[in-house]
Amino acid sequence: MTILLYDLVGSDPARPFSPHCWKAAFALAHKGLAFESVPTPFTAVKGVEGGVFGTVPVIRDGERVVGDSFAIALYLEETYPDRPSLFAGEGGKAASRFIERWSQLTVHPFLGAAALMDIHDRLAPEDQAHFRTTREARFGRPIEDVPADRDSHLQGFRAKLEPLRSMLTYQPFIGGDRPLFADYIVAGAFQWLRVISPYKVLADDDPVGVWFERCLDLHGGLGRRVSAAA
Amino acid sequence: MTILLYDLVGSDPARPFSPHCWKAAFALAHKGLAFESVPTPFTAVKGVEGGVFGTVPVIRDGERVVGDSFAIALYLEETYPDRPSLFAGEGGKAASRFIERWSQLTVHPFLGAAALMDIHDRLAPEDQAHFRTTREARFGRPIEDVPADRDSHLQGFRAKLEPLRSMLTYQPFIGGDRPLFADYIVAGAFQWLRVISPYKVLADDDPVGVWFERCLDLHGGLGRRVSAAA
Repeated sequence: MTILLYDLVGSDPARPFSPHCWKAAFALAHKGLAFESVPTPFTAVKGVEGGVFGTVPVIRDGERVVGDSFAIALYLEETYPDRPSLFAGEGGKAASRFIERWSQLTVHPFLGAAALMDIHDRLAPEDQAHFRTTREARFGRPIEDVPADRDSHLQGFRAKLEPLRSMLTYQPFIGGDRPLFADYIVAGAFQWLRVISPYKVLADDDPVGVWFERCLDLHGGLGRRVSAAA
Repeated sequence: MTILLYDLVGSDPARPFSPHCWKAAFALAHKGLAFESVPTPFTAVKGVEGGVFGTVPVIRDGERVVGDSFAIALYLEETYPDRPSLFAGEGGKAASRFIERWSQLTVHPFLGAAALMDIHDRLAPEDQAHFRTTREARFGRPIEDVPADRDSHLQGFRAKLEPLRSMLTYQPFIGGDRPLFADYIVAGAFQWLRVISPYKVLADDDPVGVWFERCLDLHGGLGRRVSAAA
């Protein structure tokens, strides 16, 4: 049975944009599992699968329902051990948590702030109201103000990617010769920006961008099926 | 035959302090391999094993000589596959490179600058001259000036550790339930500071410090055999 992926969208149901949902989509594709994206606007999240989840992604795999992108990856690894591994061993699983925390605390804050109004503007009206309320509570100021100084933080952001950039001089993926869930964790963040915002964060010759393009090529070009935001 | 570890020291041959040498020492202990530390001052590095290595650690294991801490870990993993794994799979091996780059680019710069004069002051006279020349070329200013503003950068450094700190809310080691080479990579950096400098970089209640103390307990308290600098 096709797995359902509850997938965050704005006003266009064909353009899922959540970094965490993309992590789950890449993980499902890595496992070679057929899945159907269920377009889920912000205000519909509370109704997903009985409303026990506060966020998406959520997947339904037959009778099993699992939320949280990392938990989904762990579930897929455990449930489908004969398919390509997402972690390549217990060491990879453990280190993926470090990389998830690095991505969340180093990559996400700038991208989320830089794209804040781009996200807002691509939501349906009822979701815009929800987004404004929750994000203004989080940032403590009008959402219009948050990305206003993004250009002045851009070089600092690029510098923070240096561990990833330097690692790419040793190997083509965080997973080594081949991508693993650790790659999808970080690629999900850049796909978030790519789908929702025309803002350019990486220099043309940045090896991080070259790696991200490699990630977009994976699994039949899964990530490219949604065009870059214009 | 006991493995030899060429181990960087200052004027006291019983106090090896190089972060990279400590990574190798922890890796050898993790594998349960007996090793002998060969005290090696800076100016003796060029004479190690015929002088083909520019840095230590270097190990001699019978007829095999291997330099570079990461290469040593890979060598030990390949040569002693039946002993406890340093990576727990190919995914862990690949991700360890990311963590090595993160540690080198995020943790090392502050610690190395903060402890620069503490290192200098604990070297023998001929090594002090070498150290001053090479470090003044690297930093572009008198070595006395480099750590002078360390206090003003301390909070920023602590903030950069947040991915590690946050990861520790999920699991006790970067390796998961048990330490792997990824832990030794970062612990080596903190051991460097601990052995060479009385400067206190972590707040008393920092989970990173709690994790480091766990690392010092490992392998019969290997890291504690050298007392903290006073």
